[in-house]
Amino acid sequence: MIADKMVNLVKNSSAIRAMFEEGKIMAAKYGAENVYDFSLGNPNVPAPAEVKQAVYEELEKEDPVVLHGYMNNSGYEDVRGAIAASINKKFGTSFGEQNIIMTVGAAGGLNVILKTLLNPEDEVIVIAPYFGEYNSYVTNYDGKIVVVSPNTETFQPNLEELEQKITARTKAVIINSPNNPTGVVYSEDTIKKMADILRGKEKELGSDIYLISDEPYRELVYDGIEVPYLTKYYENAIIGYSYSKSLSLPGERIGYLVIPDEVSEAEDVIAAANVATRILGYVNAPSLMQKVVAKCLDAQVDVPFYNRNREALYNGLKELGFECIKPEGAFYLFVKSPVEDEKTFCAAAKKHNILIVPGSSFACPGYVRIAYCVSYETIMNSMPGFKALAEEFQVK
Amino acid sequence: MIADKMVNLVKNSSAIRAMFEEGKIMAAKYGAENVYDFSLGNPNVPAPAEVKQAVYEELEKEDPVVLHGYMNNSGYEDVRGAIAASINKKFGTSFGEQNIIMTVGAAGGLNVILKTLLNPEDEVIVIAPYFGEYNSYVTNYDGKIVVVSPNTETFQPNLEELEQKITARTKAVIINSPNNPTGVVYSEDTIKKMADILRGKEKELGSDIYLISDEPYRELVYDGIEVPYLTKYYENAIIGYSYSKSLSLPGERIGYLVIPDEVSEAEDVIAAANVATRILGYVNAPSLMQKVVAKCLDAQVDVPFYNRNREALYNGLKELGFECIKPEGAFYLFVKSPVEDEKTFCAAAKKHNILIVPGSSFACPGYVRIAYCVSYETIMNSMPGFKALAEEFQVK
Repeated sequence: MIADKMVNLVKNSSAIRAMFEEGKIMAAKYGAENVYDFSLGNPNVPAPAEVKQAVYEELEKEDPVVLHGYMNNSGYEDVRGAIAASINKKFGTSFGEQNIIMTVGAAGGLNVILKTLLNPEDEVIVIAPYFGEYNSYVTNYDGKIVVVSPNTETFQPNLEELEQKITARTKAVIINSPNNPTGVVYSEDTIKKMADILRGKEKELGSDIYLISDEPYRELVYDGIEVPYLTKYYENAIIGYSYSKSLSLPGERIGYLVIPDEVSEAEDVIAAANVATRILGYVNAPSLMQKVVAKCLDAQVDVPFYNRNREALYNGLKELGFECIKPEGAFYLFVKSPVEDEKTFCAAAKKHNILIVPGSSFACPGYVRIAYCVSYETIMNSMPGFKALAEEFQVK
Repeated sequence: MIADKMVNLVKNSSAIRAMFEEGKIMAAKYGAENVYDFSLGNPNVPAPAEVKQAVYEELEKEDPVVLHGYMNNSGYEDVRGAIAASINKKFGTSFGEQNIIMTVGAAGGLNVILKTLLNPEDEVIVIAPYFGEYNSYVTNYDGKIVVVSPNTETFQPNLEELEQKITARTKAVIINSPNNPTGVVYSEDTIKKMADILRGKEKELGSDIYLISDEPYRELVYDGIEVPYLTKYYENAIIGYSYSKSLSLPGERIGYLVIPDEVSEAEDVIAAANVATRILGYVNAPSLMQKVVAKCLDAQVDVPFYNRNREALYNGLKELGFECIKPEGAFYLFVKSPVEDEKTFCAAAKKHNILIVPGSSFACPGYVRIAYCVSYETIMNSMPGFKALAEEFQVK
């Protein structure tokens, strides 16, 4: 009796989420310390102290009717103004509060902008490997996902294929950098070339192609790498940001969209995104957390903690003979499976109580994703298991 | 360049919301104390002290990684268990945590259940007058709204017409009691008769008809009125609850769905609602607020405050000669417009700095909604304006 569309969605429900649930069951069975759950991108570093401080301040100083009440569907004006100013300071942009729409995390923001833009059958291009939930977000609005196949050498986007796959029905391209699942940061060179391609195609086809940047991992970068700010390179760029990772608040569902004035028909897009926020049932981003993040614009989680994990896991697996690119951001390692069908490898890993996600969940079979937002001990204690797997699959 | 569907939605964007924005502009111009803004159902009574206390306790005692982290998409198990137990205690039901799905307010919950159930062209029956946003929630999933016309004598549902309008495509009926905009509580007699009709039609048509109860106003009732708990009267009943009004937390976006085991194919419906929560981009209801409401299950806002407003406004307007039914719940008065086109009346009211919403926003023209979640002074100070309107429109 459920909707036809939902039947398959339930059947193929997120492998990652299923593993998350399984991990909890295994932890109860074997003891949490004996299960190496690398399945979910659930930050294990606590929110910075500023978050708690900001909650206390808001509860003490702000009128509760304002603090917990309705505001404009796009969010509190003061919060949006503070965020715009902070972006402007960091990236030399010139956004105003009207360009910011507070959202229920980045997932909420992506749904809002896709609802805003997509007509049925419109095509949305994604670059493999990519976060599998984009499929659902796009089909929610009857759009069609078009996948650019992975460049497994550098995991930078395959730009030639991107150009070939743009048609008159292409409404948007979604990119995600630092990338889930590879940890790769798309370089400035990549972004410039991509912008040129999109601009050329817009001219050729007489259409608008929106470049939607899903950026929950922007602040989680290592070795001083810079993540280009998309709106500086392309007029029709829209940013979807989230505090889930930068402030370790994934459960709180707080983020924002940036819709610059330079976007084609910006006023309509902004107005429609405001309405979409309301009618999709979000109504507005959670109010207390809006006020809190506005007070934590320069706060950040303990990135060196993730960096230590990155080094330990990357070096440990490389030494064992596994192949993988060194991530520059996020908290994922994307490792080549020693067998073609990586699901076999994931199943073998589970026997060692190691939970990792098959690359086919990201349209990149033959690889596995290892989320290292876990304790350092989990990484170190998982190494004998990985060693056994290395021997079992003769990776050297 | 925005989606075709969005063009009209933006054009006809919520009259209520537009008025809310206009009210803020008028308040800045004339001074807040000189604008009588009865437009929005934004609670003006602060959240009870238990809310603040619960936030403090959670921040002090709970691991921030858990408190702000991802959990099962349906919500924390302990929170869902506590809510189920609380409902069971109040209503003699026997729900478990599996029957509760935490949602981003009632609006989020309605979207989740409609996404879960609706195939394109499925019909959803609503009873006028009704909250206009249901139109968008239903069309989000390509469903069709079927409106049962208002019974303006009692504002109980017109059950004969309901029965006539049920077809083989009827997937759900949405009811809202205490009702927005009338404040009427559907009586036990109404609910029993409605359940009989639906059950009869299910048998006749060989279909399932879900009765979705949108209940944000459940706790806001006066004179000891009881609001029947739908799942006790009808097997295919699903409850959408929100803490927006009962705890004055509308901006926080926190509520839940109850999907009883008695619902047809309950397991599938529950699983699909979990997936819908994720893919609609909610991911989960805000985490801190989940924990907070679980600690405030017996807390309540200052209902006598609203009751005092209700008496003052109802008696005041009756004395001036206006016609209206005395509300038994919620915080709205639904007043007969002294002229057929109630928009004329609303426009005249605005000249007295009184903001009220035309009944046509609720599929019930000829009436106006006055939200009395305002200060007592606002009501008293608006009376000269209403008096002038009474004279202008010769209501006596």
